Amino acid sequence: MEKKRELTDSPAVQAMNLIEDKLNNMPFPDSPEGLFKPIRYALDSGGKRLRSILTLLCAYGTGSEMEVALDAAAAIEMFHNFTLLHDDVMDKADLRRGKPTVAAKYGEDAAILSGDAMLTLATEMIARYGVSYLTIFNRTAMEVYMGQQFDMDFESRDIVSEEEYLEMIRLKTAVLLGCACQLGAMVAGKEGEALYQYGVNLGLGFQLMDDLLDSFGNSEVFGKEIGGDIKNRKKTWLLIKSMQEAPEEVRTAYEMLTGEELVKRIKEIYTRLELPQRCLTMINKFSDMAIKALADVSLDKDVRQYLVDLATQASERKI
Amino acid sequence: MEKKRELTDSPAVQAMNLIEDKLNNMPFPDSPEGLFKPIRYALDSGGKRLRSILTLLCAYGTGSEMEVALDAAAAIEMFHNFTLLHDDVMDKADLRRGKPTVAAKYGEDAAILSGDAMLTLATEMIARYGVSYLTIFNRTAMEVYMGQQFDMDFESRDIVSEEEYLEMIRLKTAVLLGCACQLGAMVAGKEGEALYQYGVNLGLGFQLMDDLLDSFGNSEVFGKEIGGDIKNRKKTWLLIKSMQEAPEEVRTAYEMLTGEELVKRIKEIYTRLELPQRCLTMINKFSDMAIKALADVSLDKDVRQYLVDLATQASERKI
Repeated sequence: MEKKRELTDSPAVQAMNLIEDKLNNMPFPDSPEGLFKPIRYALDSGGKRLRSILTLLCAYGTGSEMEVALDAAAAIEMFHNFTLLHDDVMDKADLRRGKPTVAAKYGEDAAILSGDAMLTLATEMIARYGVSYLTIFNRTAMEVYMGQQFDMDFESRDIVSEEEYLEMIRLKTAVLLGCACQLGAMVAGKEGEALYQYGVNLGLGFQLMDDLLDSFGNSEVFGKEIGGDIKNRKKTWLLIKSMQEAPEEVRTAYEMLTGEELVKRIKEIYTRLELPQRCLTMINKFSDMAIKALADVSLDKDVRQYLVDLATQASERKI
Repeated sequence: MEKKRELTDSPAVQAMNLIEDKLNNMPFPDSPEGLFKPIRYALDSGGKRLRSILTLLCAYGTGSEMEVALDAAAAIEMFHNFTLLHDDVMDKADLRRGKPTVAAKYGEDAAILSGDAMLTLATEMIARYGVSYLTIFNRTAMEVYMGQQFDMDFESRDIVSEEEYLEMIRLKTAVLLGCACQLGAMVAGKEGEALYQYGVNLGLGFQLMDDLLDSFGNSEVFGKEIGGDIKNRKKTWLLIKSMQEAPEEVRTAYEMLTGEELVKRIKEIYTRLELPQRCLTMINKFSDMAIKALADVSLDKDVRQYLVDLATQASERKI
């Protein structure tokens, strides 16, 4: 059931089809089933494939065939899904993208061990390109772990600064997008530093927008329930700023209210402090920095347009 | 507090001192503490360092300076400890080498995430030698995961064959010893296939002896309580064979008895079936195969003696 790559498709559509085919046709041994079935399940569970598409587009956009970057793209997707498997064990999460997590479906042991195997498989695919690729990949992996650790640490701390929060999401989320872009450019023989910066700033904008939508999105457009972060007292930028600027009000709300009443009250505080607008301003700043990073990169016209649109869209997602 | 490497020491003692110094002085960032402290703790928790010593000795024995193989040796030790961190989460184990496991001391989340970081760090250290080293390392890692999965699968199965059991311990335990030896030889410019075979057979012998000692050892010499495998109905070679040859008796024992009475009765069955002697015969066979694998390898005299003694000792550990 291989989808033919149509040369009349846009590069982004071609990239999407290529990576889906690659992931669907990845050969795994039949046995032990308990190890490989969860990997298959995780890779089949969809997602936007944003990271791997960035790898393919950055390779193609800077002068390579997409196919040459396909192992790197698949490795990035494999690594990303490995982190989800382990994060879902740590967060005791049962659902992801509307389906049971690997931990919920196959058990925590499977999520741990199959995740380990995905990390090793990702490493092996990257290594095919040479050690310099792996060094960047491994540095990024370490940063992602550090980000996850900071994220967990923050949950048990009373005070987190804005700088600490931005550094946490840079590590946990943004650097992997940067790495995805850079590895693509490297496949085409470029250094890829500027595309790394593009990816990191794109990632920062996306994560901040995700946080904003979690409180102020339209639940149908956003695809998940609104207010989850507020109910879980998750230390997002919104909560951090409101704790700095209206600490008593926020504390009182959490002491007195629960459920939808709590969500409503906290959103009132956020709105009065103009946090949604200020958050959007920050997202715009990261989008601008992402787009600026592309300025001196020699890029295929369609790819440039796609990357610019993606960054612009980060700050324009409907709230 | 660096221990000076004394050239009058035997190669094995030199190797032990080198790897201890290397692990003790490995630089980790201070922050986030929650990520790096458990790694420090795991590496400080001792153990025989058997795998990394094999790497250093196989490098030295085939013509390299030990120091050149030190990153590879540390990577092997790091990988081995990563598997222990994750295994202890899966097995819900609280103690290892008489100390709290990372999972017990720092929590399961820390054991998972710090373990992930150890795998990435090990990978990065191996990659410094080149991609061919990493490919062998990654293949071994996948085999170790498969072995762990088979081990878990066996616990919920009624019948496991002798062949399946031997294949499981080959994957879970033995191939890492083979890999440790081979990487050492590769550092010295050799292919290392024969030393790989040495390590695998050594590992098979050691694991079978471990299982035997768990039921028939002297608890003071063995360092842990005798009969743990029997009480946990762990599918060792002994239990597998006794289930084949005296299934009714074994089943009845498990239905009627518990605790020390169960241990005593099962050991009687094992002894009547002459399983300890037969197990020792098998261990001897693996020791012989390990020693035979060394026959055509050009090796430093002291190293050869150490490797032969190690294999011999596998079949002579006091029971």
